[in-house]
Amino acid sequence: METPISLHPWLDNGFAKGDPGFSGGTLVCACTDRPVKVRISGGIAHNHACGCTKCWKPADATFSIVAVTPHENVSVIENGDKLEIVDPTALIRRHRCRECGVHMYGPVEREHAFQGLDFIHPERFQERGWPEPTFAAFVSSIIEAGVDPSRMNSVRNHLRQLGLEPYDCLSPDLMDFIAAWTAKKSGVLTQ
Amino acid sequence: METPISLHPWLDNGFAKGDPGFSGGTLVCACTDRPVKVRISGGIAHNHACGCTKCWKPADATFSIVAVTPHENVSVIENGDKLEIVDPTALIRRHRCRECGVHMYGPVEREHAFQGLDFIHPERFQERGWPEPTFAAFVSSIIEAGVDPSRMNSVRNHLRQLGLEPYDCLSPDLMDFIAAWTAKKSGVLTQ
Repeated sequence: METPISLHPWLDNGFAKGDPGFSGGTLVCACTDRPVKVRISGGIAHNHACGCTKCWKPADATFSIVAVTPHENVSVIENGDKLEIVDPTALIRRHRCRECGVHMYGPVEREHAFQGLDFIHPERFQERGWPEPTFAAFVSSIIEAGVDPSRMNSVRNHLRQLGLEPYDCLSPDLMDFIAAWTAKKSGVLTQ
Repeated sequence: METPISLHPWLDNGFAKGDPGFSGGTLVCACTDRPVKVRISGGIAHNHACGCTKCWKPADATFSIVAVTPHENVSVIENGDKLEIVDPTALIRRHRCRECGVHMYGPVEREHAFQGLDFIHPERFQERGWPEPTFAAFVSSIIEAGVDPSRMNSVRNHLRQLGLEPYDCLSPDLMDFIAAWTAKKSGVLTQ
């Protein structure tokens, strides 16, 4: 029997629900010396597992865990001099620690349905209680990172067992949200 | 009670399975005078309902019905002088009848997982028996054509009732196929 593919150390064996009262905390990078710290002064939303090749994830994880929070909730509080932007042309301007590589926050500044939101990785909170992930996005993209296509049934089944419905783009709610934004921008929808 | 949204006249009230022996036929545009005719000399695959805003669909339909066939199976046999390319820069080079607007075939010529395939609309076959659609793609995109986001639950439920699992991109099989093509091209997958 083949070794199961690790989705993510936080996910593989199930996970507890978050604390409904979670209202932010401090994200810390992986450096032991002068870690970057980013304060999130409010709740996070749309936490999910993501299979895209751009999101930061721990070594050996196949999926990242990623959520959003309004940009005004995000402030760098320590060692921000270690931050660099991964790809200034990307929609999500991911800011990573140049020493340990952990992505600390990624604002969407461009005109887009997600403008004004920052993407963050809740597993970097030093606090517990952040809302648990509720779906899996960009699942087919893990093949682009080297997962053999023959393993996809088992990966999707594992995600479903964990309550993380797998999608190859975002969830229907978010895809509808993006489409509605596009329709309002084009004038097709007016409300 | 709101009037249900018509998915497509061929779909709304259920549909029969195709003939497993279907091996092609003739696509005919909607003109009564000098209709364009395109011969498909072989089977078709991946037939599905598509909610994207680019695919041709009959008036009042919300989804198109679209499938693929290898390009070498496609030949224009009558009135090809009426064909024009909708958008020469698009991945799918859709050829439509400039009089009635029906899209007759759309080859993918660019380097892509679908290169060598032509997209066609099986409902334009003058013959019956073409394989029935088996899923629905780009469902959220119907909002971009003006469907109110509040109707999406009912649209997705209707598609599921018809056996057409709704996806907001392509089906998992096709998304995996595209990802595997990308992974081979980048060298991440070698087999």
